[in-house]
Amino acid sequence: MWARSLARPLLRAPLARRSVRPLLRYASSGPPGWNDAIPLPCVDQHELRERRVMAGSARAEAADDELEILGPEPSYTKVVSGYKVFRSDQDLRLDYGNVLSGFQIAYETWGELNAARDNVILLHTGLSASSHAASTPENTTKGWWEDFIGPGKALDTSKFFVICTNVLGSCYGSTGPSSPHPRDPTGAPYATRFPILSIFDMIRAQFLLLDHLGIERLYASVGSSMGGMQSIAAAHLFPERVARVVSISGCARSSPSGIALRFAQRSVLMADKNWNRGFYYGPDRVPPHKGMKLARQVATITYRSGPEWEQRFGRQRRHLLRDGASPSQRAPALCPDFLVETYLDHQGEQFCLKYDANSLIYISKSMDLFDMTDDALAELAETRMQAHGEDGNLPIETAHNRPRQPSRPHITTISHPGAHEYVPSLRRGLSRLHAVPVLILGVQSDILFPVEQQREMAESS
Amino acid sequence: MWARSLARPLLRAPLARRSVRPLLRYASSGPPGWNDAIPLPCVDQHELRERRVMAGSARAEAADDELEILGPEPSYTKVVSGYKVFRSDQDLRLDYGNVLSGFQIAYETWGELNAARDNVILLHTGLSASSHAASTPENTTKGWWEDFIGPGKALDTSKFFVICTNVLGSCYGSTGPSSPHPRDPTGAPYATRFPILSIFDMIRAQFLLLDHLGIERLYASVGSSMGGMQSIAAAHLFPERVARVVSISGCARSSPSGIALRFAQRSVLMADKNWNRGFYYGPDRVPPHKGMKLARQVATITYRSGPEWEQRFGRQRRHLLRDGASPSQRAPALCPDFLVETYLDHQGEQFCLKYDANSLIYISKSMDLFDMTDDALAELAETRMQAHGEDGNLPIETAHNRPRQPSRPHITTISHPGAHEYVPSLRRGLSRLHAVPVLILGVQSDILFPVEQQREMAESS
Repeated sequence: MWARSLARPLLRAPLARRSVRPLLRYASSGPPGWNDAIPLPCVDQHELRERRVMAGSARAEAADDELEILGPEPSYTKVVSGYKVFRSDQDLRLDYGNVLSGFQIAYETWGELNAARDNVILLHTGLSASSHAASTPENTTKGWWEDFIGPGKALDTSKFFVICTNVLGSCYGSTGPSSPHPRDPTGAPYATRFPILSIFDMIRAQFLLLDHLGIERLYASVGSSMGGMQSIAAAHLFPERVARVVSISGCARSSPSGIALRFAQRSVLMADKNWNRGFYYGPDRVPPHKGMKLARQVATITYRSGPEWEQRFGRQRRHLLRDGASPSQRAPALCPDFLVETYLDHQGEQFCLKYDANSLIYISKSMDLFDMTDDALAELAETRMQAHGEDGNLPIETAHNRPRQPSRPHITTISHPGAHEYVPSLRRGLSRLHAVPVLILGVQSDILFPVEQQREMAESS
Repeated sequence: MWARSLARPLLRAPLARRSVRPLLRYASSGPPGWNDAIPLPCVDQHELRERRVMAGSARAEAADDELEILGPEPSYTKVVSGYKVFRSDQDLRLDYGNVLSGFQIAYETWGELNAARDNVILLHTGLSASSHAASTPENTTKGWWEDFIGPGKALDTSKFFVICTNVLGSCYGSTGPSSPHPRDPTGAPYATRFPILSIFDMIRAQFLLLDHLGIERLYASVGSSMGGMQSIAAAHLFPERVARVVSISGCARSSPSGIALRFAQRSVLMADKNWNRGFYYGPDRVPPHKGMKLARQVATITYRSGPEWEQRFGRQRRHLLRDGASPSQRAPALCPDFLVETYLDHQGEQFCLKYDANSLIYISKSMDLFDMTDDALAELAETRMQAHGEDGNLPIETAHNRPRQPSRPHITTISHPGAHEYVPSLRRGLSRLHAVPVLILGVQSDILFPVEQQREMAESS
């Protein structure tokens, strides 16, 4: 029977064969007797990493051999180099009332800006991505959209000048919680002294970069996931500066379900003692690597869908990848056991020391707060007006001037998708996009950004 | 503008009014200045609980007032009393090769056993439920299926004798990881010395209870979620003893997606330092209350669906429940902020000290391992045969005697749902149910047990 299982041809067998070594770490010595606890190699591994990080040899402990079995994923979290930096000394007035006293934005470009300066595509990233969307002469590592950017590709660099920024609040060259607090005399990072950002704040910083580059108008504003929110937010804030919008797997209003999924990630991260209320920077501190790993595991579940996992992993268990596994190795384990668990574990490991925990918390919160209904935009504009005396291009005039809608209870009976009570308000909120060509794409098996949200956006914009 | 928001009629306004007090705990003193970190009342709260638990005053810190806003959920985790206990001294030989040297099963009953002893419904629970499915004279607290059990109700106790057990591996009166290890001279609990259980092991323990009660044949085997797995597993193991099956929101084979969701829960729990490899029992130890809270938050996301949350919470934020919230209270927070976050937080709080962490780990693992394909049943029977010299009613004869299927790669292209390569094997695995009337129900918005799984089961059984 075991022989039969092992005789099954494995996916990409040579790669699987090469992976025999790291899997051996997980072998236990035998089935537990009355006084033996179940082997917990994953707990050992976390403790080992904790000690290594404490000893100053922080490095993601990913087993590269295993990665090959699990299939390569595009890396959104490569520590990049070779990016350009735009520094601004001016105060960035933020939607929720705070001010950033100067900031910087990391960016990379592909293709050539034409003489008319009208061939610019601004590419917006997902939550944790760097500006490294594709390889450049300065950094030849493949980027996270390598297949879509280049001559003759979807973003055709023989025609277009593509700009991608590291989003404000991130940690790959742009100002974020890990940047030095400009008013802290010790030069310590902001940590949780960093202000809450809106998606619109991020867009304003990007457009200051465009000003700096002398780019008046975008050929297109393009992005997926959080970038899908930003692509439409840009056209809303600066309708005269955005000629086209492409929004992929995004939404115009974060749903309670999306908020719940991101809240779960923030919660596991903030529960890590090493998070220390955000103050984990400096040589004497350990970053919340366990919390980050767990948060990434939860996130990965929302990025991938059941049918894909059925296809990639099925119910295969890791012991089947080894020839001659002993009965104890074949015994069910509490640590990663099924291949899909190994995959999640691996995704978490890959991520946990490569991205800043506070950036994850702040940017995911910005996503939660994103709501392009007219009601929400008016509320945000009012907050902004009270703090800064300006509306920041949010449609405050609508809130002030139009007749009040009669009050409605916020809980309604939903008879069919699209019948949500907020839809008319969303349509009003997206009214500045009505004159702009908008392409909206969604993926049917998406959990985090269900296709209904893209449908809703398409019908409203 | 704020006035407009506050003027909106609130859901069940009197309840919301009553909830003003606990929410005040979350008020902060003002917007953060340059040297102020963002207020983190949720972190304060965890630290407070940790101190209280350490001080021996363990108690779930749920704010009952808030529960009222969030809507009552049936409690699956009430610490029950008034249950009966069936004790067995006989060895329970487990599918994965271990043996339980004696065990006990807590159970409750409703209705009367008739003279023919043929009116018995065995009700199987979800993962964390106690035997308290409905109120009894011994325990008048409402049970988790109160609305479905009673005279004239779905499980009509004027006709039927309903039995519900606390599942083997749990902590509400049945033997599980928190039970004393019979061979440990100090009487310490099993902890992670407890053996891995299969869903079939749980069924065998239940049928020993039925033997004890002199019940030869069930009128029906009924359950939802994990109970939906068990209801069919019972008919498979004891086809001559189960006359009918009702399986609600269950499946016949845990999918990689379900495994992933449960793995994420186990991971956050096992990452809690207080989990201590499962050895957290005793007066000098603190149970992993933070990990349990986080695990429950992740679980809750998979139990409830987006449309329901849209309806219940929308994008309402907690500050809107307070009259005269100050600007700082209205400011976006990193701690629970949107109502849906408050709900998840509350669900986690309610659960975190009421259920045994190791029971969660073991039982969720049993669910992962559940696979009624003929291939998996044959493999399990072989493991059992090697360990105990008996097949335990799993169809080992099939594995031994039938011609081997030609090997196939485990990764296939899925053209449409239901085209999974395991389906023929599932059909063979469920063949003992072909003669039994089976009712299968599913919920279209279920994330953990997608309705496709019930469809697949219905087509195969």
